[in-house]
Amino acid sequence: MSKIEPRTLSGFMELLPAPQLKMEKMTETLRRCYSLYGFTPLDTPIIEASEVLLAKGGGETEKQIYRFSKGDSDLALRFDLTVPLAKYVAQNYGKLSFPFRRYQIGKVYRGERAQRGRFREFYQADIDVIGDGKLDIINEAEIPAIIYRCFTELGLKRFKIKVNNRKLLNGFFSLAGMSEKAQDIMHAIDKKDKIGANEVRRILMDELHMFSHKADDVMDFMAISGNVEEVMCGLERYKGMDETFDLGFEELKSVVKYLGDFGVPEENFAVDLSIARGLDYYTGTVYETEMCDHPEIGSVCSGGRYDDLAGYYTDKKLPGVGISIGLTRLFYVLNEQGLLSEETVSSPADVLVIPMTDDPGPSIAAATALRSAGIRTQIYCEQKKFKAKLGYADKLSIPYAVLIGEDEINENVVALKDMRSGTQQKLSIEDASELIKRDMEQRSKAPVIKEDK
Amino acid sequence: MSKIEPRTLSGFMELLPAPQLKMEKMTETLRRCYSLYGFTPLDTPIIEASEVLLAKGGGETEKQIYRFSKGDSDLALRFDLTVPLAKYVAQNYGKLSFPFRRYQIGKVYRGERAQRGRFREFYQADIDVIGDGKLDIINEAEIPAIIYRCFTELGLKRFKIKVNNRKLLNGFFSLAGMSEKAQDIMHAIDKKDKIGANEVRRILMDELHMFSHKADDVMDFMAISGNVEEVMCGLERYKGMDETFDLGFEELKSVVKYLGDFGVPEENFAVDLSIARGLDYYTGTVYETEMCDHPEIGSVCSGGRYDDLAGYYTDKKLPGVGISIGLTRLFYVLNEQGLLSEETVSSPADVLVIPMTDDPGPSIAAATALRSAGIRTQIYCEQKKFKAKLGYADKLSIPYAVLIGEDEINENVVALKDMRSGTQQKLSIEDASELIKRDMEQRSKAPVIKEDK
Repeated sequence: MSKIEPRTLSGFMELLPAPQLKMEKMTETLRRCYSLYGFTPLDTPIIEASEVLLAKGGGETEKQIYRFSKGDSDLALRFDLTVPLAKYVAQNYGKLSFPFRRYQIGKVYRGERAQRGRFREFYQADIDVIGDGKLDIINEAEIPAIIYRCFTELGLKRFKIKVNNRKLLNGFFSLAGMSEKAQDIMHAIDKKDKIGANEVRRILMDELHMFSHKADDVMDFMAISGNVEEVMCGLERYKGMDETFDLGFEELKSVVKYLGDFGVPEENFAVDLSIARGLDYYTGTVYETEMCDHPEIGSVCSGGRYDDLAGYYTDKKLPGVGISIGLTRLFYVLNEQGLLSEETVSSPADVLVIPMTDDPGPSIAAATALRSAGIRTQIYCEQKKFKAKLGYADKLSIPYAVLIGEDEINENVVALKDMRSGTQQKLSIEDASELIKRDMEQRSKAPVIKEDK
Repeated sequence: MSKIEPRTLSGFMELLPAPQLKMEKMTETLRRCYSLYGFTPLDTPIIEASEVLLAKGGGETEKQIYRFSKGDSDLALRFDLTVPLAKYVAQNYGKLSFPFRRYQIGKVYRGERAQRGRFREFYQADIDVIGDGKLDIINEAEIPAIIYRCFTELGLKRFKIKVNNRKLLNGFFSLAGMSEKAQDIMHAIDKKDKIGANEVRRILMDELHMFSHKADDVMDFMAISGNVEEVMCGLERYKGMDETFDLGFEELKSVVKYLGDFGVPEENFAVDLSIARGLDYYTGTVYETEMCDHPEIGSVCSGGRYDDLAGYYTDKKLPGVGISIGLTRLFYVLNEQGLLSEETVSSPADVLVIPMTDDPGPSIAAATALRSAGIRTQIYCEQKKFKAKLGYADKLSIPYAVLIGEDEINENVVALKDMRSGTQQKLSIEDASELIKRDMEQRSKAPVIKEDK
């Protein structure tokens, strides 16, 4: 029979078992963290009507979307989790209680040009809080506090959540009479780290036709930096001249205060006036998150406050605040950088039970006891040499083997072999079970990311 | 602005938060059970090259598959998790250790005619054990033992795993000289419960042109029923005449014995000679699982032993045994039948912290302490009347509220309100936390399915 070549499409992540277990651990950590903050899990279809997904329309999205027909239906694959959320909330408005807090961890699809580290199918891990008409500012501080907890529990230490406020920016630009150019200016500012301040100033003047003193105003404003106190202090002198600016300033002040109340240490957050999050969508606090040792990979977690989640579907004003972790890309980067801990349990089982007698009955009984204690247990029943059986455990990094032969059966014990040290001891099944369980509990506490190599 | 109607495609399940949490609990239970047996999680893409997915080809699949082009690529959405597994194992053969035990819980797509209870996007929850050339018979007993554990932990009691063996069937048909008609005969037998034995006999004779005595042979064989011992006994008299039959008989005997060793009680399994699992694919033990009170919904979990997982992709002989739970359909049926327990925690949080002072600081501190204890906590910060805040907790079935006002702050306590009983008491945050934690741990033990309404 002629064979079809088994292959996976480029831009689609498919992991071997050991890294997959690390990915699962990351996902599980996020799920647990999000739940701890009272977010409810949502699961929306991957396929939606194209009309629904493309309600907003727009260039890049339309080009990248996977769109196709089935029968008479014009269908598309979701390209983010925000549009399905907007649809869901508009559709179920009367059945939900607000604020509505949901998390969703799911695959989204974008037919981008395939290149290293870019994925066409990838996980996003989103949280959003949706209000009905209004939403308290405290939510804008809680969101980065949750991200702080997520990253900390994942084992990441050297990251910075960078916060800004769109009202502050809009107020400043309006004050300087540059509102129409705001988008272009922010776009130029965005390149500062790459091309330097002088070159940005040149762009502002030559390409955006700004007067020299206006360009200086922008450069001065954007030069406000330092720790949170210093930035807030630097902003003080713009106060009292523009209502929107003042509102943004007060919001930022509250967010900064509450972030402290939530226990986020200052080393993990900063006020960064250069963050705007391109989209027109955001109206208040905006976030980006940088891995301090890898600024080159850009923001690994972004979001912000918006005023109108579902305007394409409903007249109801649904303000919200949310953030999204690009999980597949984050995993890819961590893996590439060697930051995934080798201590993470990546074996399919905690113990391999090897029957040494013809009748596997006693081994099955032992396996049942181990499983009842919550220990992941595999019975190895294939007809192989003893050495091959232990080799199997070794190859899969299964940390323990339990051997059950005539002697053990007669003595009502098992032989417990620690595969790492090679030591072997006879124990009752209860004691073996207790020992393995304690060790695995200990090992499962190791965070999945380890920064100090 | 003209609005787009927010809608979900028919045949796509999208749940409200409370039922979604029950669905999550089912998924989590399966994940935990599968892991306990040493299966490693796999996550393959939802999109594959059409050529890869349709390697086997064949009528129904081709008709139902979601297939489309993107650029030059001919793509399709997976319609099951077995074909992607075959691809994965063939592709990564050299990097895997055998037996390779994997589970996968994921969405699959079939563009069936939409009708009540039929889904176009649905979850399958699969386990498979793949051998390299050979695979011990004990795996064929362990698979239903795992399903027994899954269903038991889900809270289902009245189910029956029905087991048969294809070699036994093939042997019998060969013995009776009816091998070519075997498929058609089994198809007729399949209808016995619906149309009665006489009508089946008529079909065998009139439509399949069998002699009367041959039809009687078939009817006699298929009439073998009763408990496991009785069926095995009834099969004895066919022994010694056909090699394949004898092999199947021995396999079935082993499976039945080991099922006992694995602790599956006889009330939850049966040998049922009428099960064949249509496909040519299976070569040994086959399974179907029936909910005793709802035989009309058919098998909720099926599978079996096969000899050649990945023949379309590789020359390597990869025998295996696996089973699949149609999770979305199972959930739908349980929900329709009112079998989902009301005791399952379906609130987004365990406790709602309500600040009664202007400064939310102390409430944030309390929430942080509760979250550190693993309690799912929401802070309610919206500007609403007190009654509306409690009403929010009530509507979402959040079982506890923690109220923090001036008095509580001064006394260094919190007011803990049990939302179900309405009672309220002042406690230290540690004691409140302990009390909530104990209660939630207790409640989370309630299985998601409750059969006695």
